[in-house]
Amino acid sequence: MKRFVDTLVKESIDFCLPDKAVAREIKNLPEVKGKKILIAIGKAGYQMAKAAIDSGFVCHKGLVITKYGHSKGDLENIEIIEAGHPISDENTIRASQYAYDMTESLSEDDLVLMLISGGGSALFELPLINLEEIQDINDQLLKKGANIVEINTIRKRLSKVKGGRFANHIRPARVYNIILSDVLGNRPDMIASGPTYVDYSTSKEAQKLIDLYDLDLSTKAKSLVKEETIKDLSNTQTKISGSVDDLCKKAGEILEKEGYDVDILTSTLACEAREAGFFLAAIAKSQSKRKDKKAYIFGGETLVHLRGPGKGGRNQELAFASMRDIDGLENVRIISFSSDGSDGPTDAAGGFVDGKSFDKLKEKNLDYNHILASNNTYEGLKAIDQLIITGPTGTNVNDVSILLIN
Amino acid sequence: MKRFVDTLVKESIDFCLPDKAVAREIKNLPEVKGKKILIAIGKAGYQMAKAAIDSGFVCHKGLVITKYGHSKGDLENIEIIEAGHPISDENTIRASQYAYDMTESLSEDDLVLMLISGGGSALFELPLINLEEIQDINDQLLKKGANIVEINTIRKRLSKVKGGRFANHIRPARVYNIILSDVLGNRPDMIASGPTYVDYSTSKEAQKLIDLYDLDLSTKAKSLVKEETIKDLSNTQTKISGSVDDLCKKAGEILEKEGYDVDILTSTLACEAREAGFFLAAIAKSQSKRKDKKAYIFGGETLVHLRGPGKGGRNQELAFASMRDIDGLENVRIISFSSDGSDGPTDAAGGFVDGKSFDKLKEKNLDYNHILASNNTYEGLKAIDQLIITGPTGTNVNDVSILLIN
Repeated sequence: MKRFVDTLVKESIDFCLPDKAVAREIKNLPEVKGKKILIAIGKAGYQMAKAAIDSGFVCHKGLVITKYGHSKGDLENIEIIEAGHPISDENTIRASQYAYDMTESLSEDDLVLMLISGGGSALFELPLINLEEIQDINDQLLKKGANIVEINTIRKRLSKVKGGRFANHIRPARVYNIILSDVLGNRPDMIASGPTYVDYSTSKEAQKLIDLYDLDLSTKAKSLVKEETIKDLSNTQTKISGSVDDLCKKAGEILEKEGYDVDILTSTLACEAREAGFFLAAIAKSQSKRKDKKAYIFGGETLVHLRGPGKGGRNQELAFASMRDIDGLENVRIISFSSDGSDGPTDAAGGFVDGKSFDKLKEKNLDYNHILASNNTYEGLKAIDQLIITGPTGTNVNDVSILLIN
Repeated sequence: MKRFVDTLVKESIDFCLPDKAVAREIKNLPEVKGKKILIAIGKAGYQMAKAAIDSGFVCHKGLVITKYGHSKGDLENIEIIEAGHPISDENTIRASQYAYDMTESLSEDDLVLMLISGGGSALFELPLINLEEIQDINDQLLKKGANIVEINTIRKRLSKVKGGRFANHIRPARVYNIILSDVLGNRPDMIASGPTYVDYSTSKEAQKLIDLYDLDLSTKAKSLVKEETIKDLSNTQTKISGSVDDLCKKAGEILEKEGYDVDILTSTLACEAREAGFFLAAIAKSQSKRKDKKAYIFGGETLVHLRGPGKGGRNQELAFASMRDIDGLENVRIISFSSDGSDGPTDAAGGFVDGKSFDKLKEKNLDYNHILASNNTYEGLKAIDQLIITGPTGTNVNDVSILLIN
């Protein structure tokens, strides 16, 4: 089973690597008389920058800001800075300030190629309040179960570069965005908190969220939230290339070749991770009576409500949670993984379980309820050798969860 | 739409009324020389007792214990007592004591016909600690998201009648159980906390749950949990007739006649209500692109994690929660209802939403997030006239949620 899962994961992700998408869009870049600058932010930043250069894009200077461990060697004329994700750190500020300085005082003859992928909200940040408070607000939002759109709606207003403000800073130079979407529904103002895209979210919405989640903010932060972001940008062009739909489609094609009848039920799953696991298990229990090979595919990005101090991620939690209710079902497998290879603050991309997993866990003297209550699913899956580990993949188009009956 | 929903709900529920099931099983009752006593407990208690009598069952005496508003007139030789549900009250104790006295000192020639349906855990109770603590423990469990099997595993041990203890009391008389299942997977020891069925749950499991949910129990309650329930009953026979599978099947048949291609994806859905709503909405968003008429059916019983003081129920919360993510989708409807007509402590059976519901709510100046945060979905659905109201139906075979694309 492990080999089957590893192949399925690898082939699905390979299909979603940014290389081809970037190469395709690079051809449409406007010709400019002035300087060309490349700025790549996000977990796929290195791969996107490399793809641009390999496609013949020549820049005067450039910068990649990506997560620790997500770059693989030098790129010509390009500085690479790795920084903290999901929590920004001092390298984030240093790198972001460098990008800000690099794009200072450009003319209308200049062009900035922005290569944007998921993770950019944390990786690209010049906060207007101190970083500790940014991190505290982020923590509050995550703990209360806010979704990515809600988090970004607030964070944009506390930042010098988000919500279109970076494109405003680059003005009058032109901005060309190539975006690899990690936000369900692919809203370009939300991916990486939209540094170079007009902001569709409003100050009013942000203020409502503060009330809704009963957030504790400093006086300065409260006053910043009242200021509006950038609503009009004439200097930018944007192309979205690559999303979770491609990931689902490719996984489905691979499974069809293996003889499965495939249903892609959704590509916008966004509920709580463990509840999604219970939901998949409920489908598994009823469908396990069928005799044919059937695959249900669910693309999206679930979220984890932190309850304890354990180690895990949303895909690990989804898979782990589902194991109790499929216990003993011999023809059921549930697989869940992140396309970027990085599920929560762990080195795993996700996990997989089957009808034997619950018993295996017991044999290791581990308690299912206790692990789930403390969000410690990494340790649980590791103990039964059912983690999915890919390393950083170079792409980031959300997650896919797969239920197999056979 | 309202008329279509009402018809679908009515016809699905009608198919699951206990009348036929009871009539069928009554034929198999053993002949006895002694007295025949009828005891019906649960939300379908009145209907089941009436069905037994209409089928020619003659009892020397009998008792129906059901929820307030769930009986419809006198039954020959049978006392009817209505009591609190989901919270037991003084009428619960009075009625249960009456059942206990009525079955005192029976001989082996006597027979007790037990008609058991959902809600029996709250409606049939002689607590071994005071009722306030029972209610407090129940509240703690519900607030922490314990499921019905977990709640009953603890409650059985704090009761003089649950966990097989009532059948033990009836000994040496015979017990014949006819059960309408409201517990997913249909475990007879869990339905109504199994007053007349051997208990498969153990004291050890109960003690583990106390730790897991960090329950606050009195010294007496703690000591009771250590005592084992009844594991051996030779005087009982049991028939389960009617469950959520019938409800799903019937809803599917009705929709097929309306031209829908129907998938019954599960009959054991048991995750959190609002998360199930988000999950259904995620499927809806992707499937709304299809051109054919498609119905997805999900049977089960979700649960609500109480966050606020509002009024609602699990089906109302599931439907309400889903409206945000299907906003604007013209061909999507989501319907969720309880077969007993009583969803949470409200007079509604459930609710339905479509792509216009979110806007309708805004027009009424109601805030989606605020309603959901306070579990006030009854008021939200009422304001837009999208509650499903059936009144008490006389049956109780869990819930069904339906996603329609057309």
